[in-house]
Amino acid sequence: MCRWLAYQGEPLRPSTIVLDSKHSIVAQSLDSPLGAETVNGDGFGFGWYPSGAKAGTEPALFHSIEPAWNDENLRELTRAIESPLFFTHVRAAAGPPIQQTNCHPFRYENWMFMHNGAISGWPRVKRDLTIAIDPLLYPHVYGTTDSEVLFHLALTLGLRDDPVDAMGRAFRMVESVGHDHDVKFPWQGTVAVSDGETMWTFRYSSQGRTRSLFHAADIPALRKMYPDAERLNLFGDRARVVVSEPFSDLPGVFVEVPESTAVILDGEGYRHEPFLAD
Amino acid sequence: MCRWLAYQGEPLRPSTIVLDSKHSIVAQSLDSPLGAETVNGDGFGFGWYPSGAKAGTEPALFHSIEPAWNDENLRELTRAIESPLFFTHVRAAAGPPIQQTNCHPFRYENWMFMHNGAISGWPRVKRDLTIAIDPLLYPHVYGTTDSEVLFHLALTLGLRDDPVDAMGRAFRMVESVGHDHDVKFPWQGTVAVSDGETMWTFRYSSQGRTRSLFHAADIPALRKMYPDAERLNLFGDRARVVVSEPFSDLPGVFVEVPESTAVILDGEGYRHEPFLAD
Amino acid sequence: MCRWLAYQGEPLRPSTIVLDSKHSIVAQSLDSPLGAETVNGDGFGFGWYPSGAKAGTEPALFHSIEPAWNDENLRELTRAIESPLFFTHVRAAAGPPIQQTNCHPFRYENWMFMHNGAISGWPRVKRDLTIAIDPLLYPHVYGTTDSEVLFHLALTLGLRDDPVDAMGRAFRMVESVGHDHDVKFPWQGTVAVSDGETMWTFRYSSQGRTRSLFHAADIPALRKMYPDAERLNLFGDRARVVVSEPFSDLPGVFVEVPESTAVILDGEGYRHEPFLAD
Amino acid sequence: MCRWLAYQGEPLRPSTIVLDSKHSIVAQSLDSPLGAETVNGDGFGFGWYPSGAKAGTEPALFHSIEPAWNDENLRELTRAIESPLFFTHVRAAAGPPIQQTNCHPFRYENWMFMHNGAISGWPRVKRDLTIAIDPLLYPHVYGTTDSEVLFHLALTLGLRDDPVDAMGRAFRMVESVGHDHDVKFPWQGTVAVSDGETMWTFRYSSQGRTRSLFHAADIPALRKMYPDAERLNLFGDRARVVVSEPFSDLPGVFVEVPESTAVILDGEGYRHEPFLAD
Repeated sequence: MCRWLAYQGEPLRPSTIVLDSKHSIVAQSLDSPLGAETVNGDGFGFGWYPSGAKAGTEPALFHSIEPAWNDENLRELTRAIESPLFFTHVRAAAGPPIQQTNCHPFRYENWMFMHNGAISGWPRVKRDLTIAIDPLLYPHVYGTTDSEVLFHLALTLGLRDDPVDAMGRAFRMVESVGHDHDVKFPWQGTVAVSDGETMWTFRYSSQGRTRSLFHAADIPALRKMYPDAERLNLFGDRARVVVSEPFSDLPGVFVEVPESTAVILDGEGYRHEPFLAD
Repeated sequence: MCRWLAYQGEPLRPSTIVLDSKHSIVAQSLDSPLGAETVNGDGFGFGWYPSGAKAGTEPALFHSIEPAWNDENLRELTRAIESPLFFTHVRAAAGPPIQQTNCHPFRYENWMFMHNGAISGWPRVKRDLTIAIDPLLYPHVYGTTDSEVLFHLALTLGLRDDPVDAMGRAFRMVESVGHDHDVKFPWQGTVAVSDGETMWTFRYSSQGRTRSLFHAADIPALRKMYPDAERLNLFGDRARVVVSEPFSDLPGVFVEVPESTAVILDGEGYRHEPFLAD
Repeated sequence: MCRWLAYQGEPLRPSTIVLDSKHSIVAQSLDSPLGAETVNGDGFGFGWYPSGAKAGTEPALFHSIEPAWNDENLRELTRAIESPLFFTHVRAAAGPPIQQTNCHPFRYENWMFMHNGAISGWPRVKRDLTIAIDPLLYPHVYGTTDSEVLFHLALTLGLRDDPVDAMGRAFRMVESVGHDHDVKFPWQGTVAVSDGETMWTFRYSSQGRTRSLFHAADIPALRKMYPDAERLNLFGDRARVVVSEPFSDLPGVFVEVPESTAVILDGEGYRHEPFLAD
Repeated sequence: MCRWLAYQGEPLRPSTIVLDSKHSIVAQSLDSPLGAETVNGDGFGFGWYPSGAKAGTEPALFHSIEPAWNDENLRELTRAIESPLFFTHVRAAAGPPIQQTNCHPFRYENWMFMHNGAISGWPRVKRDLTIAIDPLLYPHVYGTTDSEVLFHLALTLGLRDDPVDAMGRAFRMVESVGHDHDVKFPWQGTVAVSDGETMWTFRYSSQGRTRSLFHAADIPALRKMYPDAERLNLFGDRARVVVSEPFSDLPGVFVEVPESTAVILDGEGYRHEPFLAD
């Protein structure tokens, strides 16, 4: 339903990958070859941990209901700052209204979350899933999307203690409630979540046919493959990117994440783990 | 928290009272002498039953997050149409986000609803009141305001069968839930609701100190009082208006609605009824 | 660069053709098969002469910087009103900023104007063309588009007296100024203009390869061709539509307007005239 | 017509003065005691030179048509960055449309400009003043305000070489053209302009009754006056602020700038110079 990009590594000017590449995520907002929809023009969001911020610092958010491709503020902002960890999301709304509170990424304290996909049968299951949110967290749900409810379910189920376990339990709860309401394949999607230091991304769907997810290859390896690619010099050796859809056509730059997989980025590279793969 | 205006009578070009008077509701958006806040710049809404529409027709809505005073579309629209029954609302947000789904009036089928005031302790009581909404109506709550939840509570409690009884029960439920959460004066406000033929307005607060509410005097009586007032010729004999705040300084044009009162407009004039006045 | 639709005939609920057809102009805002761009998401406009208005009445305008496909207000408005003559335009911006003052249609007194195409070399020729506008009309240019300047040039050159002659002179001036600045093909586009009674549309470009333009066939003829097409019953016998792109796949419903042609609608049907065809 | 704030000094989190004080400029957007208008809700702008940027770097801009008081993005942004030189402006529109291109500050290369006040008789003089802009600069005028035209006149008249002289010549040109069109007092206002290193501010009006302008006292002096004021510890010794209106009630913190004065900030403190004072 949407497209997203998550970066972690040396502080980077976000425009380098958000704007300045042929298939940048902003370009994908207007034309996304691999997307369920080719146009992702129903608002966008950009969230970043400021460069030099202490552990536990809240990320900052920029949300807009304009299409990303014509938003001047996004261009200005992503050219003026640097960040060691940022999320960008362009939205193709399935139905809920176009408003800033429905723009990803969502935030809770120092945690940031975004999603591409959908909870099927949302109008039927929304109430049950919303009631399942911890009453203390409930007032922090500001919008109307399935994604934001999922984030708060994961928080309710222990995201801050064990992200992989909590996301798994949240997906299982979505499936359980969906099945109770005769939804055949309740969950579909890819998710990225971070506490500002580690980044966890997930590819899973009830049907086993999940929206696309890729991550870049390691920069040092890419430098060996493409010694003449000057563009690679814009990135540090620890620069890592997870995306709905590659923004480069160069063979080998992007690697598909398998179905039912969690990819964990904690400074040691991309680590794959089986996820709800039974 | 807000200012509103409700008109019923001969089809009227809404700009006549929405724009073209010294203290019009659009002027009140920038400067409201009697308001709890002087500026009502956090979006607005205009809802109207089209002229000539059959009974049971849905009203049309125009919602914007811009301040009403600088919205060109509102000027254009209210000058180009005529309507026998319309609502206008300018918002001063207490807290929930500024988004179209939080703009009054709200609609359900042929019913239209707006509110000035607040449910006190909203973050504490929101969950209980939201769960009390009929699960079949729950998916129709699109925004995050106390007002929209109140409307759906009233629908749950029988608004379509007996509006005065249902609004009374909704206010009592708000008070009951509020008291459970140690809120001293849970309900504050004035409300307007219509099915397209009859209009019900309410002035009530738990503390007995409700936001202001007025209605105009009968046009034929005003014509006798002010035989030279050409502006009165813009209105038909059955033109009736209920407002948060008078838009005319002429003595006698507006009459204050007492505390704990429902005002019913069904084509026979303004009918006052005691409301929750025990 | 854009897509537009112009209707003239019996008062019609605009949603009938603006929203409710497979390739409606709102659907074209998201996916335009014949457009120079497939996405026309950079704002839109809707202008209408109210039903029953006297000759010489100003049209009303609704302009928005949101994509038409997700604008709730457009849906509400076009379902609630009827109009005997209305324009709709969805924009794909070539460059000037996305703002309401750059949304078509433009208005001057009772005249309404919209355009699909471009003045080539705009940054180079903008100043000369702007200075050529009658100084009394100059303050009425509120935005930054080539289209609005063209409209005011045409007004300067006699649009209100002889629309076909004035539009021809305006195009020629654009070509003359463009050639002075080494622009090879200065003018490209289709234009619609109306005074509320007659509608003039133009297809012309300096290169002779103009953006597409079509008009519908006569409704009585269509009824004979498609006696079972219930949808045709929504239209009166005098309903006429000119569009950038057909919104129906039925063979014979839409007729292409030839290059260098003016189509005039004055209540007597579609009248073609050669235009700048030398 | 508006309110503005300009900061220069040690890199500062802008929220410190943009948001977090009783009479912050965002608070002034809703209620400005000294303003010509009390509400400045017609959009706003924030422009900043990034911390650590080289001389000659373009400032970044954030423009919005929302009222500043309810814009979440402004809060997020000004809390997440630091800057050694930034401008903030809240707008009360005299007339031109509410659009991002009319939001201050304006930018040309590494120069940034903002204005509070007005060119009187603007519709009458706009054309002559616009034509006086260097044709090479003309395409950089994106909006419709008097302020942006003034900025480009000043650029035309040598702003980049001698800011004080060029601003003086621009004001004189405005006065000359105004007088030609029978405008009695053509110029009114305060202006701030910077190249990223030095900041020039101006207070001048044709009538000699200019909108208010203040600057803060030196921080070391304030520390001696208020040894217990912890808030002062948020600022470095070289922190300097020029504002339309004080944001602190503490006596001695803000000093009024006299009529017909330029205040120059080049790292050596506030330097006053007589300006057009004949």
